[in-house]
Amino acid sequence: MIGLHDLFLAADRQKGKLLTDTFPELHLVAELPVDAIVERISSLRAGDAVELINELDDDQAFAVFSLLSHDQAVRLLDQPEIQRAPEIIEHLAPGLSSSLLDEMSADRATDVFQELDEPLRNLLFPLLATETKVALKKLMGYAPDTAGSLMTIEFIAVPANWTVAQTLSHIRQVERSRETVYAIYVTDPKTKVLQRVVSLRRLIMSHPDELILSVGRDEKPVAISPLTDTEQVSRLFRKHDLLAVPVVDESGHMIGIVTVDDVLDAMTEDMSEDTYKFGGMEALDKPYMQISFLQMLKKRGGWLGILFLSEMLTASAMQHFEVELEKAIVLTLFIPLIMSSGGNSGSQATSLLIRALALQDVRLKDWWRVALRELPTGIALGSFLGFIGVVRIVTWQYLGFYDYGEYWYLIAATIGLALICIVTFGSVVGSMLPFILQRIGFDPASASAPFVATLVDVTGLVIYFSVALLVLTGTIL
Amino acid sequence: MIGLHDLFLAADRQKGKLLTDTFPELHLVAELPVDAIVERISSLRAGDAVELINELDDDQAFAVFSLLSHDQAVRLLDQPEIQRAPEIIEHLAPGLSSSLLDEMSADRATDVFQELDEPLRNLLFPLLATETKVALKKLMGYAPDTAGSLMTIEFIAVPANWTVAQTLSHIRQVERSRETVYAIYVTDPKTKVLQRVVSLRRLIMSHPDELILSVGRDEKPVAISPLTDTEQVSRLFRKHDLLAVPVVDESGHMIGIVTVDDVLDAMTEDMSEDTYKFGGMEALDKPYMQISFLQMLKKRGGWLGILFLSEMLTASAMQHFEVELEKAIVLTLFIPLIMSSGGNSGSQATSLLIRALALQDVRLKDWWRVALRELPTGIALGSFLGFIGVVRIVTWQYLGFYDYGEYWYLIAATIGLALICIVTFGSVVGSMLPFILQRIGFDPASASAPFVATLVDVTGLVIYFSVALLVLTGTIL
Repeated sequence: MIGLHDLFLAADRQKGKLLTDTFPELHLVAELPVDAIVERISSLRAGDAVELINELDDDQAFAVFSLLSHDQAVRLLDQPEIQRAPEIIEHLAPGLSSSLLDEMSADRATDVFQELDEPLRNLLFPLLATETKVALKKLMGYAPDTAGSLMTIEFIAVPANWTVAQTLSHIRQVERSRETVYAIYVTDPKTKVLQRVVSLRRLIMSHPDELILSVGRDEKPVAISPLTDTEQVSRLFRKHDLLAVPVVDESGHMIGIVTVDDVLDAMTEDMSEDTYKFGGMEALDKPYMQISFLQMLKKRGGWLGILFLSEMLTASAMQHFEVELEKAIVLTLFIPLIMSSGGNSGSQATSLLIRALALQDVRLKDWWRVALRELPTGIALGSFLGFIGVVRIVTWQYLGFYDYGEYWYLIAATIGLALICIVTFGSVVGSMLPFILQRIGFDPASASAPFVATLVDVTGLVIYFSVALLVLTGTIL
Repeated sequence: MIGLHDLFLAADRQKGKLLTDTFPELHLVAELPVDAIVERISSLRAGDAVELINELDDDQAFAVFSLLSHDQAVRLLDQPEIQRAPEIIEHLAPGLSSSLLDEMSADRATDVFQELDEPLRNLLFPLLATETKVALKKLMGYAPDTAGSLMTIEFIAVPANWTVAQTLSHIRQVERSRETVYAIYVTDPKTKVLQRVVSLRRLIMSHPDELILSVGRDEKPVAISPLTDTEQVSRLFRKHDLLAVPVVDESGHMIGIVTVDDVLDAMTEDMSEDTYKFGGMEALDKPYMQISFLQMLKKRGGWLGILFLSEMLTASAMQHFEVELEKAIVLTLFIPLIMSSGGNSGSQATSLLIRALALQDVRLKDWWRVALRELPTGIALGSFLGFIGVVRIVTWQYLGFYDYGEYWYLIAATIGLALICIVTFGSVVGSMLPFILQRIGFDPASASAPFVATLVDVTGLVIYFSVALLVLTGTIL
């Protein structure tokens, strides 16, 4: 098996991890002339061919596509990973583009069509086959992040009074370019409402004369509405180990199906979005290296500016306490330390609760239970840090690294107490933020680490100086 | 279709999102007496039954399991989502436990067995069927986060010289409790090396007398080694839209398969781990509400302490500049603002590059390209924030909100310049951190937001005061 052996030769051992690459010679092929590339593509798996196309520069990619056979072009455009689909469509003759869209699977055609500029959409739509127009109209109506935006309308549904033999014969006749036959959907012969789902395996195991209805598990099928959000769809797939889920309207008629490969892609996208949000920026819609300078500034500048404006309150807070600051400069030495501890504990708590809410380990109504857990946790962690802080001050004072003045022990007490308060505050605020966001309708993952840190910074300063006033009034203050 | 209608009645419309729950009456059922629960379970989908079990308290759960039929117990234990599997096994008689493990799918039996305490493992192992012992020995050797830890050894492989009819007949005979027949693996009759993969659909569409070898796509199958890490496995599934992937040894013999449902679960776990890491803590191995107080402190205290110790360098840095601080208290007012801007831009850059590396949009060797992009981006963003900062100071001075002193315009210049430097520094450092971590063998996702912020804080202070010395020497300093 040369292929498999290549796989192992290509394996790159990096500190105990094996990287398996199914197309190790990609970069060599990308250097070949365009007709050599075109010839090579028909022997590649779709996933590898798409990686190759993505590697080419614009001119090469468009040239390759103009030379590809119709079937090959459709095969590649049907892959969600292909990167310049709208640009490729733009560079082909309208007649060719529209026939490609006709042959693509409905959900991919919808995704690509939606990314085209409006003039091109208006130009191409009339050229499409009626079937395609109908499909596009149906699917384009659904918002992103809903089941409707993930679904395909190519599924196999048979009436409940058919036999297994009739069903198998139907499957054989129905030609599909994608392997979308995960299951057979059994509908009521009169009302066409979904009754059962039958897996291919059960079909094979059954007697040809059996009624298809009796073959399926005697179980209400898991079904979703087209408005179900993609996170809920992912959860259902995981909970019931599904390969595909039927999408039904309010009466129970099938509209389409969502397949597990689209769920995998949706989950990856959600993961990226959540990471960007948690890092304090807007989600990217393109790979990192393909974003223009201006787009990058827009994605990052927005949140950076908002956080900056909010953080300016710290300057105002410190101006408010400037008298105390002048009296006890030593207090300023610990400002970064105390504030960052609040921000860090807040960051931890927020990440915990973002996941707990996403996985439904906690629900909105559990907020008070969470607060009751975070309170002692924050106090314990704050005491831990406070202890280290006090030890640090005492050590520096005794070893003579620094002189904190006559009341150095009060300074130590201030720092210790402030740390306990701020870490507790940070933990509680950080844990409550995802709940608040979800309650007012936002994605809890918008509770970014920088956002929490900013919240805690401003209040943390007030806490710090209040503790200082409490401990040091009469002595230093 | 009462079931589907229930689904919609149970739908909870929250600000335009539909939540579909496949088992809305769960909490009512959990209140029923144990025998009522047992009876109910046989009519529930496995995913819903497991949710129910998870909702019960320990005594209820153990009681239910002692009353369940053998098949039902296996059905539930086979679900990865069931939460107290080791405890349940502990509370059953060893003879019963071992026979349950025998009937479970091999990968689930391995997972559960590995979670048992050692005495119990030693007790149960001799009681297992030989087949189970062999499977456990094979699968337990694989580290978590590798394909071997995800795979199951229950797959269907047939020799290449069989016909379609022989294959179908074989499938019918092989009884499986799980629907693991995603594809048929075709092996060389003599060497038993994997040759082709044939989907069920192609099987159905083919003539019974055709050779199984000619039915499969003429394509080298995608295969992985058991040491392939789970992130790479997920990537392969997404790239090639796979439902299952064969796991082979170095000679190309099949060891097992990894199925897409396990990949979905692995991806969710990876997502959680990455979120916790990015938030600056260790990954949790249990749902939020189930972690003990002490475990929680351990998971969070570690990183919190390390970051605190690192951040103490800021106090040292400020002590070093204390002369300047005393001369220009006004500089302290902006310390939180400037440092947080560095931390925020670093956080953004880090989240960007963590994802870019995970999705392989950039590779390790592209680090310099990334640095070349982050430099101008940081300068632009820093100038943006610097502009706002300067405007703020100028406005406050002119409107009389605060008097920054005789050289207020130099203060403004200091702040502006410092912001440019720190945001640039933060962006570049934040973007390089995931590369460095990956280079030395760590998961790039360990580059947490708090970690980046701490890095930037300490150096940021030095930058700030250096800029201040540059601009203000001779006047205030």
